[in-house]
Amino acid sequence: MAVGLEVLQNYHPVKGVCIGIAQAGVKYENRDDLVIFELAPGSRVSGVFTLNAFCAAPVQVAKKHLAQADTRYLVINTGNANAGTGPQGMTDALTTCEELAKLTGVEANQVLPFSTGVIGEPLPMEKLLAGLSPALAKVSDNVWPDAAAGIMTTDTLPKGYSQQVEVTTGETISISGISKGAGMIMPNMATMLAYLTTDAVIAKPLLDLMCKDLADKSFNRVTVDGDTSTNDSCLLIATAQADMAEISSKDDPRYAAVYNALLEAFMVLSHAIVRDGEGATKFVTMEVQQAASVQEALDVAYTVAHSPLVKTALFACDANWGRILAAVGRAGVQDMVLEDIDIYLDDVCIVKSGGRAASYTEEAGAAIFAQQEITISIRLGRGDVTERVWTTDLSHDYVSINADYRS
Amino acid sequence: MAVGLEVLQNYHPVKGVCIGIAQAGVKYENRDDLVIFELAPGSRVSGVFTLNAFCAAPVQVAKKHLAQADTRYLVINTGNANAGTGPQGMTDALTTCEELAKLTGVEANQVLPFSTGVIGEPLPMEKLLAGLSPALAKVSDNVWPDAAAGIMTTDTLPKGYSQQVEVTTGETISISGISKGAGMIMPNMATMLAYLTTDAVIAKPLLDLMCKDLADKSFNRVTVDGDTSTNDSCLLIATAQADMAEISSKDDPRYAAVYNALLEAFMVLSHAIVRDGEGATKFVTMEVQQAASVQEALDVAYTVAHSPLVKTALFACDANWGRILAAVGRAGVQDMVLEDIDIYLDDVCIVKSGGRAASYTEEAGAAIFAQQEITISIRLGRGDVTERVWTTDLSHDYVSINADYRS
Repeated sequence: MAVGLEVLQNYHPVKGVCIGIAQAGVKYENRDDLVIFELAPGSRVSGVFTLNAFCAAPVQVAKKHLAQADTRYLVINTGNANAGTGPQGMTDALTTCEELAKLTGVEANQVLPFSTGVIGEPLPMEKLLAGLSPALAKVSDNVWPDAAAGIMTTDTLPKGYSQQVEVTTGETISISGISKGAGMIMPNMATMLAYLTTDAVIAKPLLDLMCKDLADKSFNRVTVDGDTSTNDSCLLIATAQADMAEISSKDDPRYAAVYNALLEAFMVLSHAIVRDGEGATKFVTMEVQQAASVQEALDVAYTVAHSPLVKTALFACDANWGRILAAVGRAGVQDMVLEDIDIYLDDVCIVKSGGRAASYTEEAGAAIFAQQEITISIRLGRGDVTERVWTTDLSHDYVSINADYRS
Repeated sequence: MAVGLEVLQNYHPVKGVCIGIAQAGVKYENRDDLVIFELAPGSRVSGVFTLNAFCAAPVQVAKKHLAQADTRYLVINTGNANAGTGPQGMTDALTTCEELAKLTGVEANQVLPFSTGVIGEPLPMEKLLAGLSPALAKVSDNVWPDAAAGIMTTDTLPKGYSQQVEVTTGETISISGISKGAGMIMPNMATMLAYLTTDAVIAKPLLDLMCKDLADKSFNRVTVDGDTSTNDSCLLIATAQADMAEISSKDDPRYAAVYNALLEAFMVLSHAIVRDGEGATKFVTMEVQQAASVQEALDVAYTVAHSPLVKTALFACDANWGRILAAVGRAGVQDMVLEDIDIYLDDVCIVKSGGRAASYTEEAGAAIFAQQEITISIRLGRGDVTERVWTTDLSHDYVSINADYRS
């Protein structure tokens, strides 16, 4: 029951990116569960990772390797998160890198490992390692749809994005990417993962800045249930294989075109995770306007987005402004004035000066709340900062998916 | 489906407290919906109120009157919260006080108003005011059970507490109280309310300190869904009618006995709200031990208590330690060390040094999670602070109650 999500069949190949896939049988037989990215020499890789204090072994190894060497391979397994696995988990993540390095003739720290799936069980190393050679044997530049499916856990649909953009006359770049996740943590499953690649030639320091900034605008602004996984990772890879001069500064006239093209990719792939959120029947843009600071805008947006009462009202198509207003009021913003608050559902004003708008009708609110996609705009009357986060409703299926999984 | 909650039939009268009740028809016919407390002259009243920035009109009036004069009457209506009602709401709350003052010969600011029920609709003043005289006509010291029922909104059971305690030889005090609430905000309904009374002779400054401290340990430590109402209020009333000398300091040898007796009353009445939480099938004590500070203990306890994934696991009787551990990890505590974390379910160790305890069996965990009442103890290994909060699971009924209410 994903909201407005279509399966992408045709991806543009990205020069310098090849992908191999195998059925290693980590948890289930007869499905792709091992994905290897092979990156051309000279590729620049930036990453942002979970802020959870207890990040999983592969995340720790990926962060270390990313800092030590130029990345040539990513190895991703689904079915097992290698999280909560102690020293053995670290050994297993490192061994995976070492074995792939041996098979490909690179150094172990040129490999980044990623795992998603069950928490607290040791990786089935024999199966996983046996899958590396078959995956490498199949490496090609046109298996993107299989890769998108190969990293899924309980996602209902694979998530992908692809675009070609002319950044200036004669310079065209390709962008392709995949993501997974359908709740910050699945039932015993973990992880939001995203891999965005482009052949654009972007200097590594600038790419690092862009990755952080783009993730902050997208993956760090989506929430299904407020839970943050131990394995969340988002990589931005620029292979530098496009026929163009390097972009090394925001002052480059081509920067805006590249940035905006990548922003769209980040937005689509992060929003896809919300659209496929556990039990989601709604895709909601929670917008806070007229805030005095980014922090207070986000405090209000997340408080409303996480309110179980607002989320169940969304599920019920009940335009319950009292619940929204009460959530705004408990967001912890100092000296907020009720009489300054306006709230809009799409373009319908429901709350004016802290009370029900005179022009508002139940019919108008019900019509908006009946839609699959809704924007709730909250105007604080305190400044000129606007922030948005994206979320879903809280449905019976959310409870079923998360409660009934092991029953 | 309240968890372990019984209806109290016999209350000890509290000298100086009389209660009157009426059917005003605020929202529903044929039910008690108006409750008046009449307090003897000399009664001391302390209160704590919602921290929601948008507190309702009656809360604003009650806070002001409490600061201005000695309280003689409380007037409580259910069915309408008088919240989100703008200037008219303030006028209505004040008018209610003025009318009751006229009927009883006190000043308007000796009356405290309280409202609970639907948000955003004007109080039906004609009905409410017409109920004052009938309620006053019935005032007596033995209608506590009716009062407990008369302040309910969608609570499934009335909530009460009563005890007599000998604080020293020959000095016995009575304590009786009622509370309501079954979710911080009901579907279009609002408010946790609690009224605790005793005939003990306690100096007002000390009573204020006790009320704040006791509420912090009880009503401010319970959470159903993390939503805070615009109307939450908790009053501690000491009528000073008991045959005893005044207690004016914590150094008084009788202080501990009075404090502990009141603490039990606060605990029982606050826990009753969780036990009757919307859709609750479990009563959970979330205990954080070995924290370095009260704040970090509470950050961890609330993060785990509010995690939808932990709450659905509780509903499913699934001892999912990975979800608990992941929630601990995202609580925002600096420099937390995974290897220092132990987690117990009652007295069963499930996580040892950050991983599944070697001694743990699925059977042992399942047996604990099958219970209606569970203590989850999280040991951080950082200090010696312990804090507890109390919460429920997240069930299909929670979604139904909050989503289906208007359908």
